[in-house]
Amino acid sequence: MSMDLLISKIKAKNNPTVAGLDPVADYIPEYILEKHRKVFGHDIKAVIEATYEFNTGLIDALCDIVPAVKPQSAYYEMLGYQGAKLLARTIEYAKRKGLYVILDVKRNDIGSTAAAYAKGYFGNNGYGVESVTVNPYLGTDGIAPFQQYCDEAEKSIFVLVKTSNPSSGELQDLRLEEGLRVYEKMADMVAQWGSTSVGEFGYSNVGAVVGATYPAQLRALRERCPHTFFLVPGYGAQGAGAAEIAGAFDDNGLGAVINSSRGIMCAWKKEKCAPEDYAKAARREAIRMRDEILGVLNR
Amino acid sequence: MSMDLLISKIKAKNNPTVAGLDPVADYIPEYILEKHRKVFGHDIKAVIEATYEFNTGLIDALCDIVPAVKPQSAYYEMLGYQGAKLLARTIEYAKRKGLYVILDVKRNDIGSTAAAYAKGYFGNNGYGVESVTVNPYLGTDGIAPFQQYCDEAEKSIFVLVKTSNPSSGELQDLRLEEGLRVYEKMADMVAQWGSTSVGEFGYSNVGAVVGATYPAQLRALRERCPHTFFLVPGYGAQGAGAAEIAGAFDDNGLGAVINSSRGIMCAWKKEKCAPEDYAKAARREAIRMRDEILGVLNR
Repeated sequence: MSMDLLISKIKAKNNPTVAGLDPVADYIPEYILEKHRKVFGHDIKAVIEATYEFNTGLIDALCDIVPAVKPQSAYYEMLGYQGAKLLARTIEYAKRKGLYVILDVKRNDIGSTAAAYAKGYFGNNGYGVESVTVNPYLGTDGIAPFQQYCDEAEKSIFVLVKTSNPSSGELQDLRLEEGLRVYEKMADMVAQWGSTSVGEFGYSNVGAVVGATYPAQLRALRERCPHTFFLVPGYGAQGAGAAEIAGAFDDNGLGAVINSSRGIMCAWKKEKCAPEDYAKAARREAIRMRDEILGVLNR
Repeated sequence: MSMDLLISKIKAKNNPTVAGLDPVADYIPEYILEKHRKVFGHDIKAVIEATYEFNTGLIDALCDIVPAVKPQSAYYEMLGYQGAKLLARTIEYAKRKGLYVILDVKRNDIGSTAAAYAKGYFGNNGYGVESVTVNPYLGTDGIAPFQQYCDEAEKSIFVLVKTSNPSSGELQDLRLEEGLRVYEKMADMVAQWGSTSVGEFGYSNVGAVVGATYPAQLRALRERCPHTFFLVPGYGAQGAGAAEIAGAFDDNGLGAVINSSRGIMCAWKKEKCAPEDYAKAARREAIRMRDEILGVLNR
């Protein structure tokens, strides 16, 4: 069971966090960009290679602290087809360093097309990640092809339930005639999709994305879905702190992995340390974040 | 107004259809694959180059008949980073042939990340398409960055409202406490998002995806959303015919563009013609489809 693999790594490192790899050019120290501009000039290859150096530096500094990384596909796709290769290289490097890779792609389509996405991201000839995020607007047809890989190839998915952004409630918080809100109904569907794949730690291969920026809903969903593992964005730069994520966890301190992207990647800016120490600053922030979360879990 | 550009092309060719470019290897005549295997052996480059030849052959045969093409991103992403380059080359070729390119990516994310997607697909340094499909599960935050390109750079989007797949109703058909079904509520939100960009033909830059496999809902939504242009999948291989799509159009024969992917791409298989005539068969099917739709419009 692939979610068991993620949970094992979380337990081994005693750290339920995932480091986002969202390589906005502005996050990268100028000296790295400059170094590659000397080789490639203003060609996009300079940004591509600078980003790869930045990413691998972060991975090296974090791989014994965090169990998982979450590349956000948009920031690679933004760089065109060369960004897709950068993503593949970054994933390969992270896997080599023993990290569980959750690719944030939020894919969704009708059955035959969802199958193409599943093959592309989970398949051995594709990107080969352990986990992807999926959008449930199309219902079971868009989920089942990914689930097949979960069952047969030790993969996991995280389905959007209650997202961290300000306008997430426009659709997700609408109340249905039957009494539930849309996100509660989706949480129930996610639990149903996962009902046949509950692993040794009590969690299924079909997880849910639930934002830390809605702590009351996060806590209520933890109660509602005892077998659904949560991927929790919104900590740090989006405004949520330790108090907000406490409700994501069960009594054993399991049940969620908390994402930080900008907080870790841009720690060197916040610390105002030497840009050359960006990776060390990221490591310091990852340790601080881990200890902050563990402090909440042990209360 | 970019939706005006699509409508102008539809009027100029008197054909409200868009040809899907979903290059499943199985759709490609063996002689094309064989030709490239002789050069690249079993390397994925053989599939990539065969697909490019297949795509450009289709584009050449269709470009004076259809106003638009719709590459389905999944089938390119399935081929890894080399698929991303294939997609970029295919888009570039289609644009050179004067076709309006609707890229079917169904992207969705929080604001800052949606902005990265919008830049990647609409931007001059990105794929540079005229239109993309977008999933509305995250609300306005996930739509606004795309809208900005619609307003400032003559682009359009098609937001998923009622999708063509069998399980689309699991979420989309749920009835809300306020009385509407979820897809009706989404249709109203789409109309609202488009309210500031209604162009010379009466349609806004924010369109909707509505499946032909739900003809009653399609007809009702046409009435409900007089300023929302529809992208209609589900015709042909998914089971809907001319009768099912009739309700997508307004009294002027405008209001929708009907997609056919497998029907056109695999016409050579259905016709059982010589594989070398795959492009001619695609053209024959595109003409047949056009005439069938025009027959419905003129009734």
